[in-house]
Amino acid sequence: MASGQRGPRRRDVLVGAAGIGLGAAAAIGVGSAVRAAAGEPTFGTSRVVDTSPHQPGIGTAGAHGVFIAVDLAESVDRDRLIRLLRLLTDDALRLMAGQAPIGDQEPEMAEVPANLAITFGFGPRVVELADPAAMPEWLGPLPSFSIDQLEDRWSDGDLLMLVAGDDPLSVAHAQRMLLKDVRAFSTIRWQQTGFRNARGALKEGTTQRNLFGQIDGTANPQPGTAEFDRVVWTGAAHPSTGRGGAVPEWLVGGTSLVLRRIHMNLETWDEVDRPGREASVGRRLDTGAPLTGSAEHDEPDFEARTPQGFTVINPVSHMRRSRPDDPTQRIFRQTYNYDHPVAGVGGMGAEVSDSGLLFASYQANPATQFVPIQQRLADGDLLNTWTVPVGSAVFAIPPAAPPGGFIGEQLFQ
Amino acid sequence: MASGQRGPRRRDVLVGAAGIGLGAAAAIGVGSAVRAAAGEPTFGTSRVVDTSPHQPGIGTAGAHGVFIAVDLAESVDRDRLIRLLRLLTDDALRLMAGQAPIGDQEPEMAEVPANLAITFGFGPRVVELADPAAMPEWLGPLPSFSIDQLEDRWSDGDLLMLVAGDDPLSVAHAQRMLLKDVRAFSTIRWQQTGFRNARGALKEGTTQRNLFGQIDGTANPQPGTAEFDRVVWTGAAHPSTGRGGAVPEWLVGGTSLVLRRIHMNLETWDEVDRPGREASVGRRLDTGAPLTGSAEHDEPDFEARTPQGFTVINPVSHMRRSRPDDPTQRIFRQTYNYDHPVAGVGGMGAEVSDSGLLFASYQANPATQFVPIQQRLADGDLLNTWTVPVGSAVFAIPPAAPPGGFIGEQLFQ
Ligand code: HEM
Ligand code: HEM
Repeated sequence: MASGQRGPRRRDVLVGAAGIGLGAAAAIGVGSAVRAAAGEPTFGTSRVVDTSPHQPGIGTAGAHGVFIAVDLAESVDRDRLIRLLRLLTDDALRLMAGQAPIGDQEPEMAEVPANLAITFGFGPRVVELADPAAMPEWLGPLPSFSIDQLEDRWSDGDLLMLVAGDDPLSVAHAQRMLLKDVRAFSTIRWQQTGFRNARGALKEGTTQRNLFGQIDGTANPQPGTAEFDRVVWTGAAHPSTGRGGAVPEWLVGGTSLVLRRIHMNLETWDEVDRPGREASVGRRLDTGAPLTGSAEHDEPDFEARTPQGFTVINPVSHMRRSRPDDPTQRIFRQTYNYDHPVAGVGGMGAEVSDSGLLFASYQANPATQFVPIQQRLADGDLLNTWTVPVGSAVFAIPPAAPPGGFIGEQLFQ
Repeated sequence: MASGQRGPRRRDVLVGAAGIGLGAAAAIGVGSAVRAAAGEPTFGTSRVVDTSPHQPGIGTAGAHGVFIAVDLAESVDRDRLIRLLRLLTDDALRLMAGQAPIGDQEPEMAEVPANLAITFGFGPRVVELADPAAMPEWLGPLPSFSIDQLEDRWSDGDLLMLVAGDDPLSVAHAQRMLLKDVRAFSTIRWQQTGFRNARGALKEGTTQRNLFGQIDGTANPQPGTAEFDRVVWTGAAHPSTGRGGAVPEWLVGGTSLVLRRIHMNLETWDEVDRPGREASVGRRLDTGAPLTGSAEHDEPDFEARTPQGFTVINPVSHMRRSRPDDPTQRIFRQTYNYDHPVAGVGGMGAEVSDSGLLFASYQANPATQFVPIQQRLADGDLLNTWTVPVGSAVFAIPPAAPPGGFIGEQLFQ
């Protein structure tokens, strides 16, 4: 479920050291990460490139990501909310630029941003406080699906902070700084931590594997393409993006995030033989090629038949069911793995870890893009045998803060 | 508390592809990690170098580490224990060589070992089953210290597996394979996951910071030096290493691991001003230099005095208290940070994460090397204000398995 990240990786770009406004810092070259004197490359000082008018972190994923949702205190009104958002914007810009926020007691830890990207999202409560008339129709819990076994402790929330980057200490420090900002205004609702392959572990352009061992992210829109822009950004060519088909003005250049925490049962998955596991997705485990092709990016042939007359790609396979026939239903998946230790278990078949996917997808309109896919998967998807959604949340992702302004400012006009 | 890792990093070395026996694979060059065609370096296929007669993973730390302790089932006798150790040895060697263990259902995940290093350790139960007469005097819980608030769920254990490497997916896969091996023989007692800076985030030779923002690992013996060998390996020049001063033969070339889980209260730490925090260790936060010097590796001057007549370095500072005057008391620290999300907290001063250090130290004899230091720190150490040991475990770390043999085989003679 991960971005294949072909093409230049925007977060590889080293930006100028001047100023804290990422808006001001222009890209000076692709792939120009600082090299250490010893000839060993270091990316510790690499910073995310300016992605205005969009927030950073969408289309590029750091190796480590933490999704944090907080619930605003009763006492938070419009003015206090603006104060909070100003504080967060400022601190996030500084952290991404490799500079310590004001009041950072461990300022040296900010010096190694390692492509730190911080993305903010709003739940319905924020929009209500700011401008109830600007509420996107789709902002709120998803319809419930038959496969769901959702837990409150992984669902919903007023304000989202996604902190991602290539160094776990950088992410931990940024996470802490932001949580210190919000705690006078809110309680932490949940924090969900995930990982992808380390930066530099795989060749550029290689699609990563998930914990089922599947190549995951193949059929994703590619960042930097018109298709990606159409799928992801509110206010682009996408036909239906907001309330009654209208585009909420403040979200132009923004998007939506659907985060589903999906438990993957590695034990029962491993009981199935390889052909069975390949049939469940419709792709090969070694290359990620469709069962009707030989290379990862070959187009699948859903009509091809076996000598017995069955389709080669099972009609209930995950690929067949998730692939929209309607091109307006595409989504951009950018997911993280989770794998948390358990204790006290033993014996054959015991789940030795709590594993799964922080399935995150970005799309202009979750109601018209994400929901139809999820509904089809709930109605039938061989993968459901081994997966269970245990958490669900939807956030409106505003565009980048205006220069000198705060995140979501467009909503407070 | 981390290795400074100056000098060549042994895990950078790429070893030949032939065979699964690390014992057979000779180093072919230092720093020769495979480079991707695109010019972007990748270390995914890098493997740890042969460290025989010692186990791998000691003196080099991957960015990600998980310490796992299991308790053997009642039914495990000497023969079954040997079966288990054979299985683990075989699978660990394969995994470190980038090859899938027999029965690996996700064999492709083994192809990116990314410097995976697997280290095994024995609690007293293993030695009892194998050869009670070979029990090192020191193998068992440490004496209790006044500062301890130990929890069972982070302490002790029959068998330790330390899985470390530079890629989180590689570590997760190896962890799973080993846990699948042991679960018919045991229950998982605890798993403790930690991280250090990502590989490539810092320049080679840079000492890492911990979550207090301190440069941690400065005054460590350096791997590859005679001093390191003397401190760490059983049977070297170190004067007292086993029962009644004798060296348990099976442990020659091995060592001991002390793992202390130490909670660090980042909240109260941040309430203290910078001079106060620097005084608590006796070193500067920016450079790590002793308060009497200007560069990280300057020798501290414990006699230097302020105009008021106080020593510049507080006699109760962590550095002064932990530094042994007796050179036989040195230890080698190789630690990981932990930082686990919490939920449901808010308000000023709330601990927004459960953070600390997986303090791991290797030494020939914990009773004569580690315990005196820990006792001095328990008796007085300014750092104790913000730190609490919550877990403790000691393991005997056998030498590398003999060629074709199993880990700890020397104990079963
Ligand atoms: C643990 C749960 C899941 C796993 C392990 C999983 C795995 C995969 C794999 C292996 C592929 C094929 C390679 C690729 O194109 O990326 C894939 C494709 C896809 N998945 Fe999932 N997936 C999961 C959940 C979901 C969910 C919840 C959705 C959306 C509701 C989704 C939507 C898609 C889409 C749209 C594709 C591309 C289909 C195409 O156009 O070929 N997946 N997934
Ligand atoms: C959370 C707990 C701890 C923290 C944050 C911490 C931090 C530090 C720091 C910042 C230094 C100075 C830089 C360096 O030489 O590495 C240091 C040194 C040292 N620490 Fe710790 N430490 C902790 C626990 C311990 C424990 C439990 C022990 C052993 C019982 C220990 C033994 C040492 C030793 C031997 C030195 C080197 C002293 C010297 O020779 O200069 N530390 N520690």
